[in-house]
Amino acid sequence: MPPIEYLGLLAGLLTTLALVPQIIRVYKLKSARDISLIYNTTMLIGILAWLIYGILQGAVSLIIWNIIGCALNSWLLFAKFKFGR
Amino acid sequence: MPPIEYLGLLAGLLTTLALVPQIIRVYKLKSARDISLIYNTTMLIGILAWLIYGILQGAVSLIIWNIIGCALNSWLLFAKFKFGR
Repeated sequence: MPPIEYLGLLAGLLTTLALVPQIIRVYKLKSARDISLIYNTTMLIGILAWLIYGILQGAVSLIIWNIIGCALNSWLLFAKFKFGR
Repeated sequence: MPPIEYLGLLAGLLTTLALVPQIIRVYKLKSARDISLIYNTTMLIGILAWLIYGILQGAVSLIIWNIIGCALNSWLLFAKFKFGR
């Protein structure tokens, strides 16, 4: 793997897993009032678009990060409905 | 431009601009308590890594989206400090 791809992996790791502490915070506070529902749904549609783009391009890392990203964003959306609009 | 790249542009547009309604919501509610500071800082570092990756790859759309993403995430981070941890 060319060295620059490690930077891409790190970038994908950070931007995808950043949502984990956000989900934890919402569950800890039992509140998602400050989270924008439009942010959440737009992000989910965008990540789905990245996933389809990755599948069409055959870009494995894009596919993997965006499957994880879809799962995490769906979880946050679930938490948003659970803990308040 | 190959048709698939329009999908990439749409995906970049959605995942980048999703933050706009989030920033608006924080300002409207004058509260960013539910926003995780770890989420915000991890996302900012991740987007910076994508920006450097884009510059090294000479990928123009990656550079443009991530400059906008950096600006929006910095704004949200500013709002987080302004409206409460």
